[in-house]
This record gives sequence, C-alpha cells and structure tokens, in this order.
Amino acid sequence: MIVFGVRTPSRRATLSGTGSEPVDDPGARPMSLARIHNFSISLDGFATGEPQTLETPFGHAGQRLHRWMMATRYWDPSGTAGVDDAFAERHGPGIGAEIMGANKFGPPGWQDDPDWRGWWGPNPPFHTPTFVLTHRPRSPIEMEGGTTFHFLDASPAEALEVARAAADGQDVRIGGGATVVRDFLAAGLVDHMHLVQVPIVLGRGVRLWDGLEALEAGYAVESVSSPSGVTHLTFTREA
Amino acid sequence: MIVFGVRTPSRRATLSGTGSEPVDDPGARPMSLARIHNFSISLDGFATGEPQTLETPFGHAGQRLHRWMMATRYWDPSGTAGVDDAFAERHGPGIGAEIMGANKFGPPGWQDDPDWRGWWGPNPPFHTPTFVLTHRPRSPIEMEGGTTFHFLDASPAEALEVARAAADGQDVRIGGGATVVRDFLAAGLVDHMHLVQVPIVLGRGVRLWDGLEALEAGYAVESVSSPSGVTHLTFTREA
Repeated sequence: MIVFGVRTPSRRATLSGTGSEPVDDPGARPMSLARIHNFSISLDGFATGEPQTLETPFGHAGQRLHRWMMATRYWDPSGTAGVDDAFAERHGPGIGAEIMGANKFGPPGWQDDPDWRGWWGPNPPFHTPTFVLTHRPRSPIEMEGGTTFHFLDASPAEALEVARAAADGQDVRIGGGATVVRDFLAAGLVDHMHLVQVPIVLGRGVRLWDGLEALEAGYAVESVSSPSGVTHLTFTREA
Repeated sequence: MIVFGVRTPSRRATLSGTGSEPVDDPGARPMSLARIHNFSISLDGFATGEPQTLETPFGHAGQRLHRWMMATRYWDPSGTAGVDDAFAERHGPGIGAEIMGANKFGPPGWQDDPDWRGWWGPNPPFHTPTFVLTHRPRSPIEMEGGTTFHFLDASPAEALEVARAAADGQDVRIGGGATVVRDFLAAGLVDHMHLVQVPIVLGRGVRLWDGLEALEAGYAVESVSSPSGVTHLTFTREA
C-alpha cells in the first residue's frame, strides 16, 4: 500500500491516503514564499508605458497589458476559464501580505496629497496588510475588506522581513511595479514569478529586464502560450 | 470532382473547387516577400551577446540562443520532429536570396582581411545569391553549393530591391543580425518574421526591439510555446 504522508503544518495541500496522523516536523516547515503573479509585460519587456498620470496609470500602454486578465472569469464572471484564468486566479490564495512600490500606489506626487488612499476605492483587492515602499512614509490607512496600507522606507530585504511577519505564515506577494519587481529579483528574494507576455511592442516605459543578466539560473522556467495571444512564463526557484 | 489549381507563376498553392482553369493574372502575382526565420532572442530581446569575436561569434550568449535548433531534425538527422523542427525547416524553401549584415558575415575587422570568406566553410548554407551589407564593399565571392556573396553599401530598401531582382521571383530572407533585422522592420519592409524566444536573460548585447514601438500594428501575431522551452512568435503582415 502506498502511503501519502503529510510532512508539514503548511497550508499546502497534500494527499493522505492512510488515515494516519500527519507528521508535524517544524524543521521542515516551508518558508513563507515571495511570489509575483499576473505581472504583464510587452514583448520588449515594459511593464508600463509613459507618462504615468492620474488619468493614465499605465501611460501609453493604456489597458493593453491587462486585457487578457479582464477577459477571464477571475475578473468577469462571464469570462473565460482556460489557461489565462487558471493563472490569474492564483493571485490571492495563500497570500498573507503584499509589497508594492510607490508608483503602484498612486500617480507621481501622491505623497503631497494627504487624502490619497490608492486607486482602488474603499475596498481594495488586497485584503491583507499591504506595504507601500516610499521614502516619505505616513501613518497606516485601514481600508474595508481587510486591506491596511502601511508605508515603509526600507530595502527589499527589510521590507520582506516586515511583510513576512505580518503575513502570519502565509506568502508575500511582490505586487509591482516594474522597479520593485526588478529590485526584488536583483536581490535574489523572489521564489516564484509569473509573467504574462503580451504581443505588443511598447517601445518606452519602465522595463523589467534591465540588470537581470542570468536571472534564469536557479529557477525552473516554463512557458505556455494561450489562445488569447499572450504567453505565460513561470520562474520557480529550484531546490 | 475537386481540382487543385495552381495559380502560377507563384509557387504558392491555392485550392480551386470549380473545375475551371486557373486564372493567370499577372497583376495579382504575389510579390516576392521579405521573410525572417529562426531569429532567436533572449527574454530581454538580445539576439547576440558580447563581445563578438572570431572565437565567440555570439559573445557571452555562446550557443544558448540556438540549442533549440540544433536539437531538431532540421539540424541533426536524429533530432526532434515537432514544432521546433516545423519552424526551423521553413528557413530554406521559397527563398531566392539572402540579405545579411556585416556583423553576421564575420567578426569585427573582417573587412581588413582580404581572404575572409565567411564563417561557413566552402559550401555555406545559403545556396542562393547572398548580399552582405557593408560600407566597404568588395568583389563578389562565388562559393560551392550555389552561394555567391555580394557586398553592398545600400539602404535596406535599396538592398531589398537588388536582392529581389536576384531572387528570380522567389522570396528574400533577411538573415540578421539584430541591427539589420531592426533596420528592415523600422523601414516597414518585412512581410513575415519568425522569432524564437529562448528562456534566458542575457542582460547585454544587441537588442532587437529598440525603436520599434507599435511594431505589431499591421501584423497578425501568433505565439506558441514548445516543449523544448522556447516560444515561437510569428508576425505575418495583414492584407
């Protein structure tokens, strides 16, 4: 008889066919991972266009980098339920905190507006502690739905430590934008990255890839193209 | 009875279900196309590493950009015969001439070596007139197997006109490197482009994408990932 043992107290689902108690081995407890999801880039590697303003958060890219996601059931109940949706919906489960850059939280200059509370209305789609990296921190803002914005002036490694403590054993999502993703990758802090390559050439904006020579070393890289035209790339840290 | 009509003088096969004679309309003769095949780039868009030397024609990229091709039956009779091979073998058929850049023909400084005859030995894999773009033209070199190297100091449009005349009704392959491909794309001269995206981050070298904002306009773009790990992208000019 084949026995499927459950090795950990982690949330990660494992199979047990035995009825025996799982072995709780704290030494083998998986670490809280740093994960990137649904990070969309153009063929030439830009994760946003320019200029980024209140009216055009992605600059001349408009919504073109994210249309693939808006077409899925994850975004719209009448949307598609294929490979795009399978990737999109991994954004939330298992995440206990998010880290984002100042340019994701608001348009240039939001630091001068004491009433700015992000783009997302009273109930932002994070539902966890959310850490905004900025050189001008302010007091936390508690939103509806479980999102609290905290403001940190910290290095990637320091921010990840703080976010992990807040994530209560769950994973931390590195939410972007491109500069933050690049900084965390360059610091070797990312365990899993899901990119979505959209078949457009933006030509200008903020590019993901700069300074990341040999990024693939230490990751298993997979790619799969979708009938929608985008290609999903996953980087998973090798043991 | 279904009749397969050949709509010559083009080699392109068309289907006719009518039983009527094919209409030979010189005005509708498909133009000789400018095509790019098997052009391999890293995730960050580099088609070669650096430095390019006699010993390392692709710089620090080594052979990593082309391993996918060496694993196919196109390259090696015992190789794979799947999607990578299906794309690879389209390199030759229907091509009547090639245009390449000076940096594809030889390492930096080859213009100072009167005996340089390319990387490819006495029987190069082109088997057609092959036009090398250089500001220092020399006399043509006739090789074995149908390849003759001609040296041109010309703009992309001028070179394409010369190559088309030599291609005798067939298509012209734009053979690279990255600078030449980019120049032909920027000039709007490319009808079909097949890129192969290899899951490595080179970080430096010669990048394809610079200056090509909105390249996708006017092309149908498809992508398909291969079990080998690369992703094939095709840009086909829309009618």
